[in-house]
Amino acid sequence: MTTNEKIAALRAAAKAAGADGVMLVTSDPHSSEYLPARYTSLNWFSGFTGENSTLVVTGEGSALWSDGRFYIQADRQLAGTEIQSMHAAAAGVPTVEEYLKSHLTAGQTMLTDGSCMPTALFEKYNAALAEVGASLVSKDVVNPLWEAERPALPDTPCFLLSREQTGSSPAEKLTAVRAELKKAGATALAVTQLDCVAWLLDLRAHDIPCSPMAISYAFVTMDRCILFLAEGRLDADDADVLRANGVELRDYNALLDFVHTLDSDETVLVEKDTTNYDLYAAMQANPHLTLKEGADPVTALKGVKNPTELANLKECHIRDGVAMVRFQMDLEKALAEGKSLRECDIDIMLHRRRAEQPGFDQESFFTIAAYGPNAAMMHYTAKPGADSAIEPHGFLLVDCGGQYDCGTTDITRTYPMGPLTDNERKYYTWTLQSHISIARAVWLDYCTGFALDSFARGPLWQHRINYRCGTGHGVGFMGNVHEGPQSLRPNNPILFRPGMTITDEPGVYETDEVGIRIENELVCVDKGENQYGHWLGFEPMTYVPIDLAPVLVEELSGSDIAWINGYHKMVYDTLSPRLTEEECAWLAKKTAPIGR
Amino acid sequence: MTTNEKIAALRAAAKAAGADGVMLVTSDPHSSEYLPARYTSLNWFSGFTGENSTLVVTGEGSALWSDGRFYIQADRQLAGTEIQSMHAAAAGVPTVEEYLKSHLTAGQTMLTDGSCMPTALFEKYNAALAEVGASLVSKDVVNPLWEAERPALPDTPCFLLSREQTGSSPAEKLTAVRAELKKAGATALAVTQLDCVAWLLDLRAHDIPCSPMAISYAFVTMDRCILFLAEGRLDADDADVLRANGVELRDYNALLDFVHTLDSDETVLVEKDTTNYDLYAAMQANPHLTLKEGADPVTALKGVKNPTELANLKECHIRDGVAMVRFQMDLEKALAEGKSLRECDIDIMLHRRRAEQPGFDQESFFTIAAYGPNAAMMHYTAKPGADSAIEPHGFLLVDCGGQYDCGTTDITRTYPMGPLTDNERKYYTWTLQSHISIARAVWLDYCTGFALDSFARGPLWQHRINYRCGTGHGVGFMGNVHEGPQSLRPNNPILFRPGMTITDEPGVYETDEVGIRIENELVCVDKGENQYGHWLGFEPMTYVPIDLAPVLVEELSGSDIAWINGYHKMVYDTLSPRLTEEECAWLAKKTAPIGR
Repeated sequence: MTTNEKIAALRAAAKAAGADGVMLVTSDPHSSEYLPARYTSLNWFSGFTGENSTLVVTGEGSALWSDGRFYIQADRQLAGTEIQSMHAAAAGVPTVEEYLKSHLTAGQTMLTDGSCMPTALFEKYNAALAEVGASLVSKDVVNPLWEAERPALPDTPCFLLSREQTGSSPAEKLTAVRAELKKAGATALAVTQLDCVAWLLDLRAHDIPCSPMAISYAFVTMDRCILFLAEGRLDADDADVLRANGVELRDYNALLDFVHTLDSDETVLVEKDTTNYDLYAAMQANPHLTLKEGADPVTALKGVKNPTELANLKECHIRDGVAMVRFQMDLEKALAEGKSLRECDIDIMLHRRRAEQPGFDQESFFTIAAYGPNAAMMHYTAKPGADSAIEPHGFLLVDCGGQYDCGTTDITRTYPMGPLTDNERKYYTWTLQSHISIARAVWLDYCTGFALDSFARGPLWQHRINYRCGTGHGVGFMGNVHEGPQSLRPNNPILFRPGMTITDEPGVYETDEVGIRIENELVCVDKGENQYGHWLGFEPMTYVPIDLAPVLVEELSGSDIAWINGYHKMVYDTLSPRLTEEECAWLAKKTAPIGR
Repeated sequence: MTTNEKIAALRAAAKAAGADGVMLVTSDPHSSEYLPARYTSLNWFSGFTGENSTLVVTGEGSALWSDGRFYIQADRQLAGTEIQSMHAAAAGVPTVEEYLKSHLTAGQTMLTDGSCMPTALFEKYNAALAEVGASLVSKDVVNPLWEAERPALPDTPCFLLSREQTGSSPAEKLTAVRAELKKAGATALAVTQLDCVAWLLDLRAHDIPCSPMAISYAFVTMDRCILFLAEGRLDADDADVLRANGVELRDYNALLDFVHTLDSDETVLVEKDTTNYDLYAAMQANPHLTLKEGADPVTALKGVKNPTELANLKECHIRDGVAMVRFQMDLEKALAEGKSLRECDIDIMLHRRRAEQPGFDQESFFTIAAYGPNAAMMHYTAKPGADSAIEPHGFLLVDCGGQYDCGTTDITRTYPMGPLTDNERKYYTWTLQSHISIARAVWLDYCTGFALDSFARGPLWQHRINYRCGTGHGVGFMGNVHEGPQSLRPNNPILFRPGMTITDEPGVYETDEVGIRIENELVCVDKGENQYGHWLGFEPMTYVPIDLAPVLVEELSGSDIAWINGYHKMVYDTLSPRLTEEECAWLAKKTAPIGR
């Protein structure tokens, strides 16, 4: 079928169901960032392969909204189809709500698969439609059209993590969640996000590339916890362990029936941004359940790493550091030997060194290896056959990470490949200053992520340069490489707490010229109390040298230099026991103190 | 009458009025920061002479809430009276609302003078009382008891500023206000704050020490503006000027009658935090008036200085700088001659030098001259006979400012009086770094005062030191030394705009040891747009050398040093044309470039 035929089929399916249109959004039942192929209906129907988009098909026409990263791609991929390419948030472009209001009239209905739309979004679109007397109804007309070609749900073997890995048991975590529910005036919680279920029950699998999650839900009450997971995915021993922790097992598809028929009176805490509409509606339809809006407490609990997790994270960062050192040595050797490298080779070289490390499982996200101006595109992915050759000048940006049996890593280094321009040196130096600015920050505990984000940007702002993304995000423990609730970004109101981890990744992205990013992971630490209040700070968790060859040392302050020398000493002391003599000598050079 | 007799009289007056108690708060009909003596009833009845407090008298007892600055003073001044001294916000101390709820029962009423309580506060207390079925009623039982001794309303001669001074006319400002009212969906505004009336109508007087205000209101509609001012205070020429600007004149006391009887249909924009309850109630009682809550647009308009005001402010800061240079020379000479000085002498020395300057009118606030540990008390005022001698070591903190015919100034310098301790040098250096941190900040226009406030604190936070106040406040133009809406403080959501002025006054206050503050005024300037957005920055408006003798130069960064040298060059270049040869030589030394 062509795209136009698929859209026509959607339109006809809506009509057959007595409705007037269909909408699809990039989402799955778990509000995942990375979607299993089964939930890529928007891509299948539209032919657009980007992320974070919305497709609206009405009787009169169809339109797809993409975000700034994908404007050009959407224009290209939708060319020649009936679908109008909408640049979301661009001047003069109607919003999805405005489009819905102008294309539907009183009494008309739009259909969507409510299992793949968060409740908050469903309500937003429904409210817009209500303004013109129309409405949004949950009905899946997509699957019947797509079924023959639609990928199955992933079904990889599940496994449980040990107390040695996570420092806690499912039973203990359930106790903590129940305490939070009590504080929130609730008695029950549907745990819908995959990484939240994973944390709560120490459950992992390989359902999603780079994110070791199992497609599952959990439902927690004050005396029960039910894991909804496809039958047969857990071996008998693990199932027994969960049962011993007070967890009942049901099939993945049994959740809606369960909440429809639950006959104990519960006040269910619901986070509308992450609970899919069908689940929400099923809970709302059960008179035993009272729904109470609030943040999912699992996200906040998961965001603070316990001492065992922190110790394990240290070990995984050491292993990752050893791999990164060896990778950089390999890279320098290849360049010295005049080998011609392309961007896609970098991922292979990195994988080889990470795979040598004990407990390595997989990458924590698809490696970004971007040479020269390619790195100015923040979401660049080199494609085999269409990747750039690495030339002996300018910068190579490498953003990568690993999943180990003791944690998850995320690191970026920007390597000089040869001579650099003055601008390249300046941008690199200022990026490093921004990195240090947040790495050495000390603050009173009233200070939000917004205020700290400004700390990070200060040195770049001095030169009227900014980066159009946050400064950093949380990282899961054997989990998603992006997790909340903490983040370093404008308008983030979350307060940091000791044990939260965060990436520190400022950058300079000058279109068609250069992209630079320097990223460590940091952990928030307690800096004690005095008469002024409770002080917090960060400590680096990443042990990888920062290349100083590009740095304009005279631009650095004494504190910048002290931080660099202190950090590099720690890197050397931590990694050298695991390195060969040759590697130690290399690292000693890379971490030698600098001065003015 | 003793305090207990006065409280008993209040209680009896409440009873005679059929009520059950009385409450008094520190306020006046205009929500002024500095109160005319006529509005100090709380002090007269209680004997407590501090600021920002609340007195509650019920049938059973009486209590006075003071804030942290005044706990000890309140304890002392209330000792021996029936009034319980309440430390507001201290652990275990009931709030005013809690006290009201526990001392009144259903059907009972408290009285207050609603003309001296902001509507928002009145509603807060009334809501608390409503929880127990009681209520707050506006009735003034204070004046009959106090009348014989009560100070009259100030009645100083009023005058108008010229277009050469303010760069705008009342008619032009009325046009701007009406445009803002239109945007807010309103047609009328009661201008209640004295500095807002002063700005709107170019009106000044000397009703309040240091604040050149006239006790007045204005009421603005789309086609009328009425100034409520005691008859005879404005000369005939000025009255004609106002009439030519479309302003009607009425007696100060005619406002309530006016709003009661206004018979045009108006939507009145009301800022509940600054509109007194009696005025609010009178407007609410008029069926022609619809009240709409919102911020008083005059505050926002007044906060952005126009080019004429900025040019005049520059001139007044030059005059103030010349006076400050001469004062510092006088001070150094007196110390060199071994003269014994006390804190109160400083105010006299400063006044002499400011009074020599053309257009000087008065101080913009009571000078703070605090020697040694006294300066650790942020609100210290030296009292004649009880002031400290200045010794030849440690620091003298001097915070002062002037009202000129071309603007208002506010400046703090901390002078070394002789040898300093290591801590004193460190604290001074770090305070200077914090000062520079905000002075040289460049930021994107989405950044709030909260985020910028963190910039300022960063260098002190590195040493786990904080100051328990904002980093800076707006300053009026021939107006109040404190004005909004902009400020540098935690939780301030206001965005800076070019033309806003702000003080930059971080400090270190170590109890019983030392107090240091370095304060310039800054003006927000446009730094242009580029692909990242719209950039803003600050430029100093104060031209006074910062003493570098205490500075530990090795702690400074290259950018710190560049800022200091650039600032000092500007100070020298700006002031030297107005100084004698001897003064120039002195200033050249004080502003000589430093290096490492």
